[in-house]
Amino acid sequence: MKIGIVGLGLIGGSLGLDLRSQGHEVLGVSRQERTCKIAVARGAVDDAGVDLKFLADTDAIFICTPLAHLYTTVTQLIPYLSLNTVLTDVGSVKNSVVQAISPVWKNFVGGHPMSGTAESGIEAAQHGLFAQNPYVLTPTETTPLGAIALIESLIKPLQVRLYHCSPADHDRAVAWISHLPVMVSASLIAACTSESDSSALKLAQMLASSGFRDTSRVGGGNPELGVMMAQYNTVEVLRSLSVYRDKLDQIIGTIEQEDWSALEEILQQSQRDRPKFVE
Amino acid sequence: MKIGIVGLGLIGGSLGLDLRSQGHEVLGVSRQERTCKIAVARGAVDDAGVDLKFLADTDAIFICTPLAHLYTTVTQLIPYLSLNTVLTDVGSVKNSVVQAISPVWKNFVGGHPMSGTAESGIEAAQHGLFAQNPYVLTPTETTPLGAIALIESLIKPLQVRLYHCSPADHDRAVAWISHLPVMVSASLIAACTSESDSSALKLAQMLASSGFRDTSRVGGGNPELGVMMAQYNTVEVLRSLSVYRDKLDQIIGTIEQEDWSALEEILQQSQRDRPKFVE
Repeated sequence: MKIGIVGLGLIGGSLGLDLRSQGHEVLGVSRQERTCKIAVARGAVDDAGVDLKFLADTDAIFICTPLAHLYTTVTQLIPYLSLNTVLTDVGSVKNSVVQAISPVWKNFVGGHPMSGTAESGIEAAQHGLFAQNPYVLTPTETTPLGAIALIESLIKPLQVRLYHCSPADHDRAVAWISHLPVMVSASLIAACTSESDSSALKLAQMLASSGFRDTSRVGGGNPELGVMMAQYNTVEVLRSLSVYRDKLDQIIGTIEQEDWSALEEILQQSQRDRPKFVE
Repeated sequence: MKIGIVGLGLIGGSLGLDLRSQGHEVLGVSRQERTCKIAVARGAVDDAGVDLKFLADTDAIFICTPLAHLYTTVTQLIPYLSLNTVLTDVGSVKNSVVQAISPVWKNFVGGHPMSGTAESGIEAAQHGLFAQNPYVLTPTETTPLGAIALIESLIKPLQVRLYHCSPADHDRAVAWISHLPVMVSASLIAACTSESDSSALKLAQMLASSGFRDTSRVGGGNPELGVMMAQYNTVEVLRSLSVYRDKLDQIIGTIEQEDWSALEEILQQSQRDRPKFVE
C-alpha cells in the first residue's frame, strides 16, 4: 500500500520504519527540509518533502503533527486527496479531534498509539516502538467500516494491543491514567521546591531517591505536552482533578484527626486496587 | 567489636550480613525463634536468641524494630547494658524517637539508613544493601561525641553516603521526599478507582502504563509503613500536604481559567526543579 505520514517526529518516524518493514511504500511530509533528509537517511520513509501535495496519491495518511495543527493539516490536505483516502491521527486526545475532523473528511479514524520514550524527534524514531503497547482507535457511528478495516490492517502487524472505544471514553480514561498523574506529579515537585527552610530543602534534595524519583517523573516531563493535555481535554482533566482533591482531602482529614485505622483502610485499599491497573 | 541487633528483618538482617563481613561479632535478638534460626543459617548473625539479655555484653546495639516498639525495647534493654554501650536505631522518623530515648539512655545516636527493597523480612536481607545509599545520623547537642564516632566507625565501611542533621531537619526533609509522595500517590489510586463510569474505568485499567505505574508505585506500597509515617511525623506530613494542596489548587486554577501560559510556566518550573532532587 502507499502510505503518507505528515509529521516526522518520534511517532511518525517510528510508524514509517515499521510500515516500510511490512512492505509498504511510505512517503513523508515535514515542514523542515532537514527532517525530511534525516527521515530518508534513517529509512523511516521512502521519500519525503515539505509540501502536502507530495501525498496526493496515497491510500492512507497518518497525521502525526501536534494536536494544535491537526485540523489545519487535514483541511490543507483535502484538495489533494482522492475521496477514498483514509486519514487517521495519533493525537493523545480524541473527542475534540474527532468532532473537528469527521465533518470535513468522512474517511477519518481517530487513533492513539500509546507508546513513547523520553526522547522526541526523528532521531528518536525506532523499530518496534508500538509492539505490545496499546493502540486505541476511536471510530464513531458514522465512520465507514472500510476505513476502520484499512487502518487496522496497517497497525495490527505492528503487534500492537488494539482497542476500540468512543472518543469520549478514550478521553475520560486517559485523563485518569495519563493526564491526572502529570498534574499530581508536577504539584509534588512544586510543593517540595517551595520549602522556605533552606537547610531542610537542601537535605531533601540530597536524600531524595527512588520514591521521589518515580512519583515526580511525569511531572518533570515535557511542559508543552502537559499543557496540551489540559487544553484539549479540559473537562475530563478538571473532573479527575476534582475527584483527586477530594481523595487527598480524605487522607489529610484522617491525619488531622489522627484516625490511623481510617488511614490504614485507605492505604490498604490503594494497595489492593493498584494491581487492577498495572502489575 | 561485639555488636547486637534487635529485630532481624530486612534492615537488621542486612546490617548483620555487612557487619560480620567487616569482622565484627554480631548477636541478634528476634521475638520469633524461627527468625533467629534463619538469621543464623543465612549468616546474618553469629548467634541469635529471643531474650534481650542475650545482648548484655555488646559494645553497640542497632535497634531495628518497628517505630512503635523502639522505646519499649530500649527500656527493656537497659537493665542488661553497661553504661558504655552505644545504642542506635534505624527508624524512618527521628524527632519523636530521639526525644523519647535520649533522656533514658545517654549513649544513643538516632539513625536512618535510607535503603530498602520491595520485600521485607529476614529472607530479603542482603549484602551491600546500604552501599551508595544515604545513612542519616541525627545526634543532638547532648549526644556524646564518642558515641557518634563509634556508630560512624561501624557504618562508614559499608560505603554509605553519611549525613548528619538535626532530628527536626531530618523529619522535615523526609516528609517532602518520602512521606508526602506516599499520600499523593495513594490519593491518585483512590481517585482513579472511584470512577463510576464503568466502561471508562475498565478502559483506564487496560491502558494504564509506565506513567501511571511510576506515579502510583509508592501509594500502592505497605499500608502500615504509610500509617507509621503519618503517625510519627504528623506535623511535618500535614505541613507538606497543606503546601501540596495549594500547589495543586494553583494548577487547577490555571486550567479552570484556561490560562495556558500560566500552566506552562508551572510545568516548565517543575521540569527545571526536578533534577535538583534526582537525576
